[in-house]
Amino acid sequence: MTAYRSLETRFARLAHLNDALGILGWDKETTMPLGAAAGRGEQLATLSVLQHELLTAAETDELLGRAEEEDAASLDPWEQANLREMRRLYVHATAVPGALVEAASRASTACEVAWRTAREASDFASLLPRLGEVLQTQREIGAAKGAVLGLSPYDALLDQFDPGMRRAFIDPIFGALRAGLPGLLAEVTERQARQPAPLPLPAPFPVAAQKALGERLMAAAGFDRTRGRLDISTHPFCGGATDDVRITTRYDEADFTRALMGVLHETGHALYEQGRPRRWLSQPVGQARGMTLHESQSLLIEMQACRGDAFLSFLSPCLSDAFGPNRAWDPENLRRLFRHVAPGFIRVDADEVTYPAHILVRYELESALMGGDLPLADLPGAFNDGLRTLLGLVVPDDRRGCLQDIHWPAGLWGYFPTYTLGALTAAQLFEAARRATPGLEDGLARGDFGPLVGWLRREIHERASVDGTQAVVAAATGRPLDATAYAAHLRTRYLQ
Amino acid sequence: MTAYRSLETRFARLAHLNDALGILGWDKETTMPLGAAAGRGEQLATLSVLQHELLTAAETDELLGRAEEEDAASLDPWEQANLREMRRLYVHATAVPGALVEAASRASTACEVAWRTAREASDFASLLPRLGEVLQTQREIGAAKGAVLGLSPYDALLDQFDPGMRRAFIDPIFGALRAGLPGLLAEVTERQARQPAPLPLPAPFPVAAQKALGERLMAAAGFDRTRGRLDISTHPFCGGATDDVRITTRYDEADFTRALMGVLHETGHALYEQGRPRRWLSQPVGQARGMTLHESQSLLIEMQACRGDAFLSFLSPCLSDAFGPNRAWDPENLRRLFRHVAPGFIRVDADEVTYPAHILVRYELESALMGGDLPLADLPGAFNDGLRTLLGLVVPDDRRGCLQDIHWPAGLWGYFPTYTLGALTAAQLFEAARRATPGLEDGLARGDFGPLVGWLRREIHERASVDGTQAVVAAATGRPLDATAYAAHLRTRYLQ
Repeated sequence: MTAYRSLETRFARLAHLNDALGILGWDKETTMPLGAAAGRGEQLATLSVLQHELLTAAETDELLGRAEEEDAASLDPWEQANLREMRRLYVHATAVPGALVEAASRASTACEVAWRTAREASDFASLLPRLGEVLQTQREIGAAKGAVLGLSPYDALLDQFDPGMRRAFIDPIFGALRAGLPGLLAEVTERQARQPAPLPLPAPFPVAAQKALGERLMAAAGFDRTRGRLDISTHPFCGGATDDVRITTRYDEADFTRALMGVLHETGHALYEQGRPRRWLSQPVGQARGMTLHESQSLLIEMQACRGDAFLSFLSPCLSDAFGPNRAWDPENLRRLFRHVAPGFIRVDADEVTYPAHILVRYELESALMGGDLPLADLPGAFNDGLRTLLGLVVPDDRRGCLQDIHWPAGLWGYFPTYTLGALTAAQLFEAARRATPGLEDGLARGDFGPLVGWLRREIHERASVDGTQAVVAAATGRPLDATAYAAHLRTRYLQ
Repeated sequence: MTAYRSLETRFARLAHLNDALGILGWDKETTMPLGAAAGRGEQLATLSVLQHELLTAAETDELLGRAEEEDAASLDPWEQANLREMRRLYVHATAVPGALVEAASRASTACEVAWRTAREASDFASLLPRLGEVLQTQREIGAAKGAVLGLSPYDALLDQFDPGMRRAFIDPIFGALRAGLPGLLAEVTERQARQPAPLPLPAPFPVAAQKALGERLMAAAGFDRTRGRLDISTHPFCGGATDDVRITTRYDEADFTRALMGVLHETGHALYEQGRPRRWLSQPVGQARGMTLHESQSLLIEMQACRGDAFLSFLSPCLSDAFGPNRAWDPENLRRLFRHVAPGFIRVDADEVTYPAHILVRYELESALMGGDLPLADLPGAFNDGLRTLLGLVVPDDRRGCLQDIHWPAGLWGYFPTYTLGALTAAQLFEAARRATPGLEDGLARGDFGPLVGWLRREIHERASVDGTQAVVAAATGRPLDATAYAAHLRTRYLQ
């Protein structure tokens, strides 16, 4: 067996471990009894350690070296990309000393626990020491990875979530967003104020009817139920394993809209996972490219397609079927309902006009905190300043301010920008898909996602990790990612 | 760290892998979408291989040797027993060459698939080649383990399922059963014929009501719902993980009795798992002792306790609560319903009087097949002869004869005797528990399992694997296992 073939075997084993972790993680959030938490923690930790040991073993490095030297010439382009991805994973995993990995894991585990209490009590001061430990360990990880990758610490962290993504690429794009946002928001809210409010919803909406509706729409969008599931969890997510993609939602009988759009959002993630190329499912090159493209797929389905006129006209009779006829299901009212714009404190509740503001604030602050330009104790004030400047809101307490997200306590630094990069990518991809696919909007109006998803399969899903995010976007849309499609989308949807 | 402490760390890791396998296995039977089967197979195989590699690593042997030499004197009795159990697991795992493990696994995987078709078609001839491969690999495993353990091949296979169990111990006990069975059966059926038949059941029994009843009775029996679950699967089982014991059943709306008694049976298994000593949960000495004692716990709850007069008088009003009042719930009728004796072809449907006959036949045949005293092609005829002799039944086809069980195709040779050894043990333990615990029957009549389960906790569950099966039984009951308590139980229940 060549060194390259041995590596394929080794990385397939890593993928199976990852799949096992995915199912155990899903079970933890949906099914597991409370008393099993400590035991599950041990199981997850053991599988992670085995994964890490297998990836960072001297034999992996030795095989990589041999494959790069002896085999590279005989490999086809996907195999070459696979070898590059293997090396990338190895470098990321070995760049950080084991003691630091452990310290970071301990710091974030402890900080997550403290965060739940601190958020409840709106007590940033009580979180400060533990959050400081997380920040310090993440700084050291950024520095360690940066030294090996030739990147700044923050770019090295970004690279974990979106390989190849850099501040130098983000800054001008986010700058354009920042410049346009306050004016756009003023125009949108002024125009919205002149229109009627959405009709009140004819609650209650029984969970069984909401679930059946969600499953109907998932199926329409192309979700393969023989290779996935829909379940319930407190925090919705898309997880599971290869050929076993599990999305979750939570139901509110007073308001079906969040669960419905949540299911469509997670369906977008699931389509990406279900559309990866079969030959490469268990190999690094066959994985989804990164969080920016992943988020672009969920937002393309939820925001671009399912809040658009065509889909809402299909949704209207579906809602009558599910909940009985009502004037609230008129397409005109659905447009008002699903496109209501209102600045708010909570990121995860934000509409697509104001969402970027939440990310711009967090991106700027986490870069400053990482670089030492902002003392951690000054975070709450700086956070509130940011939200006031961009959205005109006065944050009343830290629970609704800098304590609202789990990302920083959990050690996810460099993750936030991928949400908005994903939103921009979704707009640019949808623009290109419509241009390239004449029947796309007519399809959505009939609940036929075939033309749209067919284009996504070819341009995104089946590309997996054979190219970088930017190359994929440029190949699919004819230009590198920028903010123009997103800006045009918002103007069209909210100002015309 | 001493060698012994290093071993504890290593075996805890193995336990966590085992727990992960338990949850993934549960998910496979209850939850997983069909299209995920191949991927799940890869995940399970990868975790099993990692477990095997960790257990059989040279370092394990080296640590065992050092611990046995240097540490043994300083270890307390549980630690010493733990070290013995570690060595036992290591010996079993290393006794068989890797190539043979693989060949056996391949043979049984292929044979299980072929068996589903062959059983459906009642076509033993089509299974013969693959079953022959399974038998041959199991023979070689028995020989390999026997050579290391100083045992006959069949005893070596038995030892996998019930450490320390030997044919020389089983033969006289099973001989006594065999001698008494035809006469007992004739007496019981003759007496039963003189009594009224049970009243017809007032079907349908909605699944939700059956589930609620099952959960009520599980809770009464002491099942801890914060550390376990009840779900649905085609083949009921008790699985899951440490502090996460998952039992399953399947519901038939026309007949609640199988699901109900099935839930109580699996609850008996679950109580054993939930009652293991906390200090040793992740160590070999903290595991359940073997399949004989495990089956004794399920049968003690289902057969000894829950089909007894005391519990049935408690069950009577529970059934009225669950399904509405009905004369069928009179305790007298419940006794007829839950203690109906009728020789039948199918082992898993058998009552407690005729069940041993099914095991006696299989035990004799699998020993003869292993030893080469019976050609595999002659199995169907020999099987049918056995059932005719013991139960007076003429098996109409192999689907209802030697093809009914998955055990032999799946490579589980040496497993069958533990069912009946478990039944005998259950009777002997229950006899001792009643003698030692004055309020036990009164408790069951009130749905209070406290006195019974308290005794089981002390005498069985908390002993885990610190002693051998026979030592545990002798300590709990005052004598080694024999068939007298079982025989007395049957005579009391069915002939008085």
